[in-house]
Amino acid sequence: MSIDLSHRSEVVELVAKTEAFIADHVLPVENEFHGDITAAGGDDVRRELNAKAKAAGVFAPHAPVEFGGLGLNMCERAPVFEAAGASTFGPVALHIGAPDEGNVHMLAHIADDRQRQLYLAPLAAGDVRSAFAMTEPSPGAGADPNALNTMAVRVDGGWKINGRKRFITGADGAGFYIIMARTSGEAGDRGGATMFLAPGDRDGISVDRHIHTTDKSMIGGHCEVTFTDVVVPDEDVLGAVDEGYRYAQVRLGPARMTHVMRWMGSAVRAHRVALDYVDQRQGFGGRLGDLGMIQQQVADNEIDLAAARALLVRACWELDEGGHASDATSIAKTFGAEAFSRVVDRSMQMCGGLGVSEDLPLARLANELRPFRIYDGPSEVHRWAIAKRAVGRARKVRTAN
Amino acid sequence: MSIDLSHRSEVVELVAKTEAFIADHVLPVENEFHGDITAAGGDDVRRELNAKAKAAGVFAPHAPVEFGGLGLNMCERAPVFEAAGASTFGPVALHIGAPDEGNVHMLAHIADDRQRQLYLAPLAAGDVRSAFAMTEPSPGAGADPNALNTMAVRVDGGWKINGRKRFITGADGAGFYIIMARTSGEAGDRGGATMFLAPGDRDGISVDRHIHTTDKSMIGGHCEVTFTDVVVPDEDVLGAVDEGYRYAQVRLGPARMTHVMRWMGSAVRAHRVALDYVDQRQGFGGRLGDLGMIQQQVADNEIDLAAARALLVRACWELDEGGHASDATSIAKTFGAEAFSRVVDRSMQMCGGLGVSEDLPLARLANELRPFRIYDGPSEVHRWAIAKRAVGRARKVRTAN
Amino acid sequence: MSIDLSHRSEVVELVAKTEAFIADHVLPVENEFHGDITAAGGDDVRRELNAKAKAAGVFAPHAPVEFGGLGLNMCERAPVFEAAGASTFGPVALHIGAPDEGNVHMLAHIADDRQRQLYLAPLAAGDVRSAFAMTEPSPGAGADPNALNTMAVRVDGGWKINGRKRFITGADGAGFYIIMARTSGEAGDRGGATMFLAPGDRDGISVDRHIHTTDKSMIGGHCEVTFTDVVVPDEDVLGAVDEGYRYAQVRLGPARMTHVMRWMGSAVRAHRVALDYVDQRQGFGGRLGDLGMIQQQVADNEIDLAAARALLVRACWELDEGGHASDATSIAKTFGAEAFSRVVDRSMQMCGGLGVSEDLPLARLANELRPFRIYDGPSEVHRWAIAKRAVGRARKVRTAN
Amino acid sequence: MSIDLSHRSEVVELVAKTEAFIADHVLPVENEFHGDITAAGGDDVRRELNAKAKAAGVFAPHAPVEFGGLGLNMCERAPVFEAAGASTFGPVALHIGAPDEGNVHMLAHIADDRQRQLYLAPLAAGDVRSAFAMTEPSPGAGADPNALNTMAVRVDGGWKINGRKRFITGADGAGFYIIMARTSGEAGDRGGATMFLAPGDRDGISVDRHIHTTDKSMIGGHCEVTFTDVVVPDEDVLGAVDEGYRYAQVRLGPARMTHVMRWMGSAVRAHRVALDYVDQRQGFGGRLGDLGMIQQQVADNEIDLAAARALLVRACWELDEGGHASDATSIAKTFGAEAFSRVVDRSMQMCGGLGVSEDLPLARLANELRPFRIYDGPSEVHRWAIAKRAVGRARKVRTAN
Repeated sequence: MSIDLSHRSEVVELVAKTEAFIADHVLPVENEFHGDITAAGGDDVRRELNAKAKAAGVFAPHAPVEFGGLGLNMCERAPVFEAAGASTFGPVALHIGAPDEGNVHMLAHIADDRQRQLYLAPLAAGDVRSAFAMTEPSPGAGADPNALNTMAVRVDGGWKINGRKRFITGADGAGFYIIMARTSGEAGDRGGATMFLAPGDRDGISVDRHIHTTDKSMIGGHCEVTFTDVVVPDEDVLGAVDEGYRYAQVRLGPARMTHVMRWMGSAVRAHRVALDYVDQRQGFGGRLGDLGMIQQQVADNEIDLAAARALLVRACWELDEGGHASDATSIAKTFGAEAFSRVVDRSMQMCGGLGVSEDLPLARLANELRPFRIYDGPSEVHRWAIAKRAVGRARKVRTAN
Repeated sequence: MSIDLSHRSEVVELVAKTEAFIADHVLPVENEFHGDITAAGGDDVRRELNAKAKAAGVFAPHAPVEFGGLGLNMCERAPVFEAAGASTFGPVALHIGAPDEGNVHMLAHIADDRQRQLYLAPLAAGDVRSAFAMTEPSPGAGADPNALNTMAVRVDGGWKINGRKRFITGADGAGFYIIMARTSGEAGDRGGATMFLAPGDRDGISVDRHIHTTDKSMIGGHCEVTFTDVVVPDEDVLGAVDEGYRYAQVRLGPARMTHVMRWMGSAVRAHRVALDYVDQRQGFGGRLGDLGMIQQQVADNEIDLAAARALLVRACWELDEGGHASDATSIAKTFGAEAFSRVVDRSMQMCGGLGVSEDLPLARLANELRPFRIYDGPSEVHRWAIAKRAVGRARKVRTAN
Repeated sequence: MSIDLSHRSEVVELVAKTEAFIADHVLPVENEFHGDITAAGGDDVRRELNAKAKAAGVFAPHAPVEFGGLGLNMCERAPVFEAAGASTFGPVALHIGAPDEGNVHMLAHIADDRQRQLYLAPLAAGDVRSAFAMTEPSPGAGADPNALNTMAVRVDGGWKINGRKRFITGADGAGFYIIMARTSGEAGDRGGATMFLAPGDRDGISVDRHIHTTDKSMIGGHCEVTFTDVVVPDEDVLGAVDEGYRYAQVRLGPARMTHVMRWMGSAVRAHRVALDYVDQRQGFGGRLGDLGMIQQQVADNEIDLAAARALLVRACWELDEGGHASDATSIAKTFGAEAFSRVVDRSMQMCGGLGVSEDLPLARLANELRPFRIYDGPSEVHRWAIAKRAVGRARKVRTAN
Repeated sequence: MSIDLSHRSEVVELVAKTEAFIADHVLPVENEFHGDITAAGGDDVRRELNAKAKAAGVFAPHAPVEFGGLGLNMCERAPVFEAAGASTFGPVALHIGAPDEGNVHMLAHIADDRQRQLYLAPLAAGDVRSAFAMTEPSPGAGADPNALNTMAVRVDGGWKINGRKRFITGADGAGFYIIMARTSGEAGDRGGATMFLAPGDRDGISVDRHIHTTDKSMIGGHCEVTFTDVVVPDEDVLGAVDEGYRYAQVRLGPARMTHVMRWMGSAVRAHRVALDYVDQRQGFGGRLGDLGMIQQQVADNEIDLAAARALLVRACWELDEGGHASDATSIAKTFGAEAFSRVVDRSMQMCGGLGVSEDLPLARLANELRPFRIYDGPSEVHRWAIAKRAVGRARKVRTAN
């Protein structure tokens, strides 16, 4: 046993295939559909891209082999998802975008056989999209999950759900929802939460509006959704009742890391655009790329990307080993999200006036990347959790001595 | 003689009137016209807002008194322009936006009587808009003005201009241009440049396209303009031949500072939006505004804004005293532009998911503010100039001893 | 009335005289006495330097004219104290160091005639040094003054004081103390505090030890002092009973600003050492000072120093106008302390291996400057106060509308 | 083949043994010898500690097994050296400090059998110390190795060396030197350099002075050394003539990484001191460790340490795989050195006044860590190299397409 950071050759080849696929099939249509694909109508484009991805052998590489995927573990997803992230539509094209990717991951771990056939199979195949309905408007569960306000009460043969959710990615046009609702306790204490499955057209589910955010590439948008007397039969309870917080952790750690992977791809792309620019543009008596202040920005981008990648590998390995990796995922997410913003900001700066224009994709990428410091737990919440654990560990060591 | 940082009461009152005007007349229509006003058609809206500003006594406060303005000096412009900057359309409404404000300033200093009546008077009154055509596409004069490529050659009774300009703010719909062109020397050496006046409809002037940048509030956009055999008679030479670089300095220092003033207003607005949010939103057992990590961001915003304002006052005072204020304006510009980006970024972060959505103006303000680190000299160019002067001063002291 | 940032000629001349005095009389002995002067024996050196400062006309420029000083207001002290701060012993030489300078300021505002003759006069003349005994070891008054633990109880004709103080600058060898003790309420609530005057040799005052910190230039050191049944007669109560918190504010705001002034001088010196180095040292095919990454550090130093100076002027002007300037002094102190650390750190970096050696004064200056981010209120406490006030102001505006 | 970040059990146990050894035998004497051990007389202490380390089974774990070491590869050294670095004398105690550790590494790779017996064997056993004489005073080889000025000229049966070296760690008391001298070409062009072995008492070697830097724990100090007509016989040429630059790379990459490992240990220690402090100290109505601004600093320390460690693992793995790892080592070194400064600085800040005092080891650790941003290539030089390679790679990709 000794440290090894290399990938098996299948993964190395898949990365190369993914890079080629993005270059050949996704980047050429990226500008065309930017903004439009958000709406539910964007599913036509998605299906076209999905078909091409299947043909290229790069579709849904994370899905279980039995459902047509390649069964990549977390460490292996990292370079593939990064390659896909070079285009903001790459994840949609490969069907590895949020929230579907995380939902596939979660269903593969928790769903029973019936649910696997009914929900996981069509999702893994890209026949439908899905949504994960957890976060709520204030004073409900935002960054603080204990505030969960959406209630599920027992009815004959199942549950009746009432509540409002916000920032539900992909809700518009979702084939089904995974709904997290409180099944015991009161908002503010932890109590118990449960995961429910429900088709998108179930009575009482209403997509009220799109929240227009700076990122535009997630199909189905970020929506406000109301659940009014939504009835879910017992057979659509996902896993056990009152175990929702635990399952959320099963989903959130890996989903956080795949976010890092995909957005890493966007940051790398921004950096490459800047590298090409500064290598070709003349000014101040030479190439921009030979000027010290530019070299500093180039180097800082390289350092940021390398560190984010190294932290990601660490967290993925811990997850693959079966751990919760709470610290490692919080650290990789927080560092990554902040690093990517820095990388794309420096890339814009290096490209001068064009950097803030639509002539280059940088400003758009900056707007795609900015929300990641907030989505999936704002940096402040992750830092709070990291600090609490660190102080707690230190106390344990101290009091043990 | 002793240090005094207070304003005369007329200025204090004007600030209050400006704040009221922005709140009553500009913010209500801001969302409606965002994006549209960029096009030349936006002049209808501009004229309406200008008329209201005149009625409110806040129109063109920087213009010479003889042309209907209030004749504010630079120090006095600072708080007024900041108040106007609270709305991205405030500067248009008060007719103190770029490039008109700087062009009024420049014409007031250099134009002869005929030019004052023909160009300055209608510009000061808001009857027309103007453009300042200096920056060029690579390998011409971008951040490095010595690379000036646009040529003016002597013809009978005047000059004939050929060249391409880029990022010409307000060009679409401009009543007239101030064109900077090389009249001696070669691109790359300094040589001599001259300023020329020309009506917007002069033969040979072509607005080729808008460069779509992240900022959307400057009327007339940022354009690429071609000058093909544009003839300018001698009487429309602005100032003396070959003195263009010197005049550019007359314009650039103050124009840089009024940019700081206006964008300061946008940063202050973002900060206020965040203050209201964190004071009202609950989470983690209390108000967000009582959490240490939020307080740190609030305090850092306060510090950044105070420092930017203090540096601005210093630079304005030096300009009002008649100095070039090269260092002071470079420092205030560089610090301000970077500080404003930090302020709006923290403001977004404090507002969580809504901070990156169109529900709040923050993401839009971030996109308005980002280019200022590039426009008017990228931070890197200012730092290069600041450092060269600092090292030069130290050498002088050392070798004198 | 209009903004003016210039100084009267007397101040301009005093700055020049101070620079000359530091260069001629203080810098030459700085290395010799570094470290030693901290001990009480350092007073011999201090008296020699004070005599020279008197001869040069630069002694105690802040002291009231009636006590032999020049009566400079806060704005005027700024450039003079900065000039003195170029040497870490400059403030001692001019008798404008902490805590004497602040104690002179405080006594001039609060002391009665008898106290002025007995305490202020010899202090202003430099015949004695003084200490200000406020901060306490945990769980007493450290960064949080409400935790004041030292108690003064009423005895016949006066008060009896018991308690422990920590980080009492200049205690070793102090001619007298100003002691802050609780006269009503309990530790943890605000209650009332009172200021007491006591000669250094009063029974019951014991200097227990020096706390050895990274800064080495404050004469009399930073000490732990115990007060055991120290009796203070009523005539030595400074100001009114139970008004100590208010008086502390009178002292702390200005004292904070003079700290900024003096340490600004040290930061400026570090920057100048680096400027000379990078202008003369060759490497990588040219002068270091022509390399972009060096220029960036030079420029960032210039920006940091300019911003700190501009914030300082703002705060001093507010104090001179009679305000508490709570925000302005907190902001200037916090920004200044952090900026000075950055400046000296960059200066070290620019000088390479020599920068971290005793061949240059930079590493020593870094150790002198580092504590200022903690002394006089850690940055965190100032940020907390700044944020609370900012949120409070925003709430007031919001609820007024 | 798949990613694995775990260590074999022998390494895990060695880490535990090292932690115990540092706690039991090194930390107790650390304060006693701080500062003194630098001088050559410190070798007595070193021999005592070395003997204890041998008894504890933790001595020279990186040395080849045939020379009594444990033959750890780079990945395996990382956690062991980090554990040793908790005390600034830990590396000396384990005989894994600079420059001996790197010299063992280099000799193991390059030395012939005779040289292994004569130089490597006693060095690995700790019977002697060694020095690596490469860097020179300006205008010689400092951060820029091409400027190599020390010349070796051919004499009968060997070489004669003349030149001056600076910052030669461990020179005072070194049993032998590895001297890098120019054997072809001129200073400024690359030419050829050669490595020479010479006993410390060889005629013509003079240790002129110690350069007193902020770090105090490297035995033998950082010295200026003059080589005057130093004769080295052919059998003491290390490796091949004119291959010195290549060998320097063999040494520098790994040596850079072991620096990161050791100083990581110091940063971790600082962080732990702060964790204990903020968990126990009360203030502002609770434990400091529960305040948001403290939590932010705790979390940022955790993130910085995790990222530095992750980058280190990456670089070590590349080195173990036989690569040059130029990028990975530059990135890990640059990020690590800067991160460690941030970590110790935050740790000081969290501990308030005590943080800058000798009551806690933090200020001392800060002074130990600061030079690492300069030693072994300043951050600026590494960034320059990183940027050049990044731009070069981008150009290669672009021109290939």
